[in-house]
Amino acid sequence: MMKTSVAEILQTEALLQEVQLKGWVRTFRSNRFIALNDGSTINNIQCVIDFENTPEETLKRINTGAAIAVKGTLAESQGRGQSVEIQVSEIEILGDSNPDEYPIQPKKHSFEFLRENAHLRMRTNTFSAVMRVRSKLSFAVHQYFQERDFNYVNTPIITGSDAEGAGEMFRVTTFKDNEAPIDENGNIDYSKDFFGKETNLTVSGQLEAETFAMSLGKAYTFGPTFRAENSNTTRHLAEFWMIEPEVAFMDLDGNMDLAEDFIKYVINAILERCKDDLAFLDQRLTQEEKSKPQAQRSEMSLLEKLKFVVDNDFKRISYTEAIDILRNSKPNKKKKFQFPINEWGADLQSEHERFLVEKHFKCPVILFDYPANIKAFYMRLNDDGKTVRAMDVLFPGIGEIVGGSQREERYDVLGEKMKALDIPEEELWWYLDLRKFGTAVHSGFGLGFERLVQFVTGMSNIRDVIPFPRTPQNAEF
Amino acid sequence: MMKTSVAEILQTEALLQEVQLKGWVRTFRSNRFIALNDGSTINNIQCVIDFENTPEETLKRINTGAAIAVKGTLAESQGRGQSVEIQVSEIEILGDSNPDEYPIQPKKHSFEFLRENAHLRMRTNTFSAVMRVRSKLSFAVHQYFQERDFNYVNTPIITGSDAEGAGEMFRVTTFKDNEAPIDENGNIDYSKDFFGKETNLTVSGQLEAETFAMSLGKAYTFGPTFRAENSNTTRHLAEFWMIEPEVAFMDLDGNMDLAEDFIKYVINAILERCKDDLAFLDQRLTQEEKSKPQAQRSEMSLLEKLKFVVDNDFKRISYTEAIDILRNSKPNKKKKFQFPINEWGADLQSEHERFLVEKHFKCPVILFDYPANIKAFYMRLNDDGKTVRAMDVLFPGIGEIVGGSQREERYDVLGEKMKALDIPEEELWWYLDLRKFGTAVHSGFGLGFERLVQFVTGMSNIRDVIPFPRTPQNAEF
Repeated sequence: MMKTSVAEILQTEALLQEVQLKGWVRTFRSNRFIALNDGSTINNIQCVIDFENTPEETLKRINTGAAIAVKGTLAESQGRGQSVEIQVSEIEILGDSNPDEYPIQPKKHSFEFLRENAHLRMRTNTFSAVMRVRSKLSFAVHQYFQERDFNYVNTPIITGSDAEGAGEMFRVTTFKDNEAPIDENGNIDYSKDFFGKETNLTVSGQLEAETFAMSLGKAYTFGPTFRAENSNTTRHLAEFWMIEPEVAFMDLDGNMDLAEDFIKYVINAILERCKDDLAFLDQRLTQEEKSKPQAQRSEMSLLEKLKFVVDNDFKRISYTEAIDILRNSKPNKKKKFQFPINEWGADLQSEHERFLVEKHFKCPVILFDYPANIKAFYMRLNDDGKTVRAMDVLFPGIGEIVGGSQREERYDVLGEKMKALDIPEEELWWYLDLRKFGTAVHSGFGLGFERLVQFVTGMSNIRDVIPFPRTPQNAEF
Repeated sequence: MMKTSVAEILQTEALLQEVQLKGWVRTFRSNRFIALNDGSTINNIQCVIDFENTPEETLKRINTGAAIAVKGTLAESQGRGQSVEIQVSEIEILGDSNPDEYPIQPKKHSFEFLRENAHLRMRTNTFSAVMRVRSKLSFAVHQYFQERDFNYVNTPIITGSDAEGAGEMFRVTTFKDNEAPIDENGNIDYSKDFFGKETNLTVSGQLEAETFAMSLGKAYTFGPTFRAENSNTTRHLAEFWMIEPEVAFMDLDGNMDLAEDFIKYVINAILERCKDDLAFLDQRLTQEEKSKPQAQRSEMSLLEKLKFVVDNDFKRISYTEAIDILRNSKPNKKKKFQFPINEWGADLQSEHERFLVEKHFKCPVILFDYPANIKAFYMRLNDDGKTVRAMDVLFPGIGEIVGGSQREERYDVLGEKMKALDIPEEELWWYLDLRKFGTAVHSGFGLGFERLVQFVTGMSNIRDVIPFPRTPQNAEF
């Protein structure tokens, strides 16, 4: 007898085989047909009960959500939408599910409701598909870098530095609230805290990843990062996973090549490996779109969008070119932008990025060479003295999915920049050391993993692509 | 011309080929021979300078740690210990390294010193080897589970629950120190904190991973976990990475099989993929052992130990059997144990575990069926009413490397256990729900990744197998 999974059974062609299977009841109809799912695939297997020879007591317990074990014979199915089914010879109820209490009924639940039941939402088609895709996407990320001899580096989560300035930070402490010790000058005595100093949750592993690039050559992080920002949007999480490759001897052009190649690789991997889940998510999104006004519907289906990204070159233009396009664009002239583009130097807003990607170029866009004063201190200054070798990859529907740069490798230039921005050398002495000893051109980027999962699954709210989202006023489960 | 890495060059047989290479100078001798390393392998490539035609100014700048670019021809080497070398036609200094200031000189540095220079220590043989092995080991972990259709799950880092009780926790807050708001009852008003409640850094993703096992069937976590314990030892970190598989419909026997198979798989992967790094680490450890008194030296070399683990069955015995062995052991009778074993129920200490593994069985040991009152609340109670289906995998030199259990799947039994231990139902209602709706036998374990890296690399201090260790009074970099 073959102990197996639903995914394996649905791929098998060995009919009349005896199989043994455990899973959860999705539906039970006509006192006869169980749709059984075990999480191995989005598809259920139909288990046909010999209800005349099954005790009434057992039949009553075959409810949505119940865990059961079945033994039986694999047979060709007469039903639609499935090739095989199990003719059940033995059924055992492992765990009941009271239909009056079980929250996940075989009907459409709102995503809000399912977020409140995030511990059970993976038992629905949509979330099981999203979470399987997320898992396979994670692995494709590791595969891409490992096959290219990048070193995975676990940069610290708790950091004593708040110098990167990527956003507001969470404090980490073992002080009791309102009982932090005071030193003789009346200040909090952090030397008595667990780490002997003030500590926070990291906003990025980039600076530490650079130490690995400048020794092992190629490195990447893939770990959690944090923002204590009060952003209640469909695009922001307080806790999210970030991928940050960093490569020695690579300039910004190489960086753009890497980002484009990487994104295409992982999307291709999902197109190949998650066909059933993507087909379901494609259908789901198409249905969802139907409820929108025509003008807001996407021109492409989910699968079309994914194929479009892997089949087309990303459009690369400089910030300066982008400003020209935006300044002369219809929405700018008609004053449709909330933030009109009047002059070079303006920080681009989501509306501008979306115009470039969705209306003007109609493909992913890489913008590069941004004004220095709207970008981070570690980005390499161009010879013009006013732009830096930064790049952002902009995606339809998502906006910025990648932000990266060639790093400032010149000790003096970096030191002056830090001074101008009041970033204390005592905190980043080790980062400066990388420029002091064997410095070289190097580059890298950061990609917010959940935004990538959003793009690949077509889920509109970022809270629905991470198992247990952390957002302002919410840390349930 | 081939732009390439040292690893690729050392594998090539295409002599007389023009190559171009960038890396860092490890040593420079006789004004002629550069040992160049780019992090792609532990091995250096010898670059031979035509010093008569190289400007004095350039020669002076070829110092340890300097970044350089060379062009040249690949030739058979006359030197010992290498098959090929580069006859350099062009050399460029990319980044200088002042020999009077550069901390990493071509000599033996203490690990303490290198910890203080953790941003540069990957430029040494030992730490480059350790970090490459760590990276490849991480990937093998993902491969093992992904090839077996486990779903990678990113459980939350910030948690509103402190119910698991695995250890002291770090608090996470956006309150200013000593300025947390007070409610009308004089208590801290956590509803005003970022998440609207008290939050901590997670000690384990297990409970959340169970929600994935009970929906998708097979799941695993691989992420950072935290302990705010003041343990200044070579085995403890405040921040470390944990691997936690969790499988539905699997009992404790299956769990032991999984743990053993998993550990053997990842060690085998490293034996195959990291030959050069392991050969170096094996030599290093052998050297280090020579400085120890004979009695403290290991009977096996690093490579022998690794091969021994993959080639032999782990010995499986119950806690009760272990107590019998320990009670009747020489060290117990001669009162050599710091904690004598007198009766059933004693919690095993490191000295007992090491006796079983290193002296008695001389192989990895899996202990199972521990007394309920020394194990966690979620472990399945045996029919004897006094033991639980727990298991620990014990390793030579490391002690406990895996802790796992079959989980209590019975709603009533779990509820009573929680009540007895004062674990509030309001906090773990969702965990109880897994037993209320479609419960089933399920099991899993946790493996501290750094302890595995220690075992595989032979490094004795856990601070030397993680890039930037977090320990009491230390959160540098």
